[in-house]
Amino acid sequence: MSEITTLSIPAPDDFHVHLRQGALMRAVTPLIRDSGIATAYVMPNLKPPVTTTEQALAYKKQLEELAPGVNFLMTLYLSPELTPEEIKKAAKAGIAGVKSYPRGVTTNSDSGIESYETYYPVFRAMEESDMVLNLHGEVPSDPSSDICIMNAEEKFLTHLRTLHAAFPKLRIVLEHATTQAAVETVKSLGDTVACTITVHHLTLTVDDWAGQAHHFCKPVAKFPHDRAALRGVIREAHPRFFLGTDSAPHPRKNKEAAGTAVAGVFTGTPLLLPYLASVLEEFGALERLEGFVSGFGRRFYKLEERHPAPVATRAVIRLKRSEVVVPQEYGFVDDEGEKSSVVPFLAGKTLRWSLA
Amino acid sequence: MSEITTLSIPAPDDFHVHLRQGALMRAVTPLIRDSGIATAYVMPNLKPPVTTTEQALAYKKQLEELAPGVNFLMTLYLSPELTPEEIKKAAKAGIAGVKSYPRGVTTNSDSGIESYETYYPVFRAMEESDMVLNLHGEVPSDPSSDICIMNAEEKFLTHLRTLHAAFPKLRIVLEHATTQAAVETVKSLGDTVACTITVHHLTLTVDDWAGQAHHFCKPVAKFPHDRAALRGVIREAHPRFFLGTDSAPHPRKNKEAAGTAVAGVFTGTPLLLPYLASVLEEFGALERLEGFVSGFGRRFYKLEERHPAPVATRAVIRLKRSEVVVPQEYGFVDDEGEKSSVVPFLAGKTLRWSLA
Repeated sequence: MSEITTLSIPAPDDFHVHLRQGALMRAVTPLIRDSGIATAYVMPNLKPPVTTTEQALAYKKQLEELAPGVNFLMTLYLSPELTPEEIKKAAKAGIAGVKSYPRGVTTNSDSGIESYETYYPVFRAMEESDMVLNLHGEVPSDPSSDICIMNAEEKFLTHLRTLHAAFPKLRIVLEHATTQAAVETVKSLGDTVACTITVHHLTLTVDDWAGQAHHFCKPVAKFPHDRAALRGVIREAHPRFFLGTDSAPHPRKNKEAAGTAVAGVFTGTPLLLPYLASVLEEFGALERLEGFVSGFGRRFYKLEERHPAPVATRAVIRLKRSEVVVPQEYGFVDDEGEKSSVVPFLAGKTLRWSLA
Repeated sequence: MSEITTLSIPAPDDFHVHLRQGALMRAVTPLIRDSGIATAYVMPNLKPPVTTTEQALAYKKQLEELAPGVNFLMTLYLSPELTPEEIKKAAKAGIAGVKSYPRGVTTNSDSGIESYETYYPVFRAMEESDMVLNLHGEVPSDPSSDICIMNAEEKFLTHLRTLHAAFPKLRIVLEHATTQAAVETVKSLGDTVACTITVHHLTLTVDDWAGQAHHFCKPVAKFPHDRAALRGVIREAHPRFFLGTDSAPHPRKNKEAAGTAVAGVFTGTPLLLPYLASVLEEFGALERLEGFVSGFGRRFYKLEERHPAPVATRAVIRLKRSEVVVPQEYGFVDDEGEKSSVVPFLAGKTLRWSLA
């Protein structure tokens, strides 16, 4: 069998990305354009959280100025101030989804939800407006119930099942799945339930973030059999599993220190597709790259119909089999005027594929 | 019920401690004397490993000069160069045990073992000399067999059962147990099998070392139900479960950096007993402190008979209910003449008990 040495795919979509605010936003947003992506589905966990259509549109404008041509899909943060009226308004304004964070489980999730039933009127409005519900699928740790970060996702799945049963037409995305249990649950549910998978969860297991702050994210990478399940569902080209990087940049100083590091892996760089081609090839799924990054998510999100991209971004991205070393960091000047940097995933490591 | 405000216990024993070499050894060894311990059971994973009686005795002499009055019990590193003849010689010289490291699982374990059967002649000699076998109970990670750091201890237990069946009279200590499975297995075996438990595994779960390099050790802290099992066996005063801190100091710079942190938690400080009194009280086992630190291990190791302590160390240690803040670090000058430091467990946190 002759070796594939070049790849051409339609500009991909990242259905889960943190673009931050202030100086860090200005540093990382141009990098996602350089990665070649057409669509960036933007998380709302800013300080303060994005809870209104106005905030989301103002944020979108900032991002468009930093990365012209990228199709930014905006989300609202599920919280008590979000009303069914606001949902209708948001849908009309092109806001694509609403993100739910269980309280306290990850970066800026203090405003997260504690019980879903309170939000049923909001979900009903979302179902009517065909907006997407994006779930951070972890329950908070609770030692008295044996809940910790290693089983927090699996314990969440009952909520996913309940929500889908209550709102079968509501499109729901279980974000950044990390477990075999999550994969099996999403597969078992209807066509309105999908799942994003990150680059780093396809690459890492629990061993890799032990003592390695730059690999620490929430949800954490889990057992080898869990990683195998994520890889398996891509190998079988399941149409409800697609890329959402959860790229979550933090200043280096907040990752490397005496205290507990902030959670997040930074993959939203110009090397996004080289990361993906390299790891998919490693587990024998290189031919699944296109569907995973440029096909399945686009269809689930009804992009052509609801959120058509500017013509400029419907480009073809070319990759070549040629090694590239991941930079040690991306420097920027922070909001206090200090020199800062963000460390990309696999800094200093060599990838097999590069952008052509 | 009136509150206990002071405690007096016989000077305790730490049946698993890393005292390092060079400048770091000179920095940390006096601290264990200041903790009030009578006995320090010293690990042999130096560079190069301690594999001969001569090396062990020379190391012991260095330690005695740094902490006069402490009863240092020495160990050899299990490796192909260790012969039955060396075991007999070591036993005569008062060497207390042999430590087995599976290859590659922790600090300086590159010389560790791959298969136990090769060592049966050594184990037979140890059984005849009544030396103790100390097991680092983890198998190496292997994604193809779904083995990772979260199940590496449980997967090791079959080796413990096999060794005990083959050498029922050989005293074996499963070191730094972290799982309910390990606790249950040790309980199910005969009186020649015991188990050490660390301060940090009584305190932490997987959530606590996620992104926190100073809580990262091997074996890693696991699920809440595992911690509950460790706590439970102390609450029931099981005589084959006793203190071995696995205190494993590393220079701060090797814990906090871009790369993967070295494994180890540093508890061998003057606050050792305050750590223990505070956490045992937290889970309702304050009255079990004495047996856990000054009784059960001493009996299992036959200290009075085989390794009597100098009279000076048979002191009584007094604790008072009085808050103390754990220092941020202990400074020292390293072997290159550079300023360095080691960060103690729970740096900056407040403990409820202090040395009186």
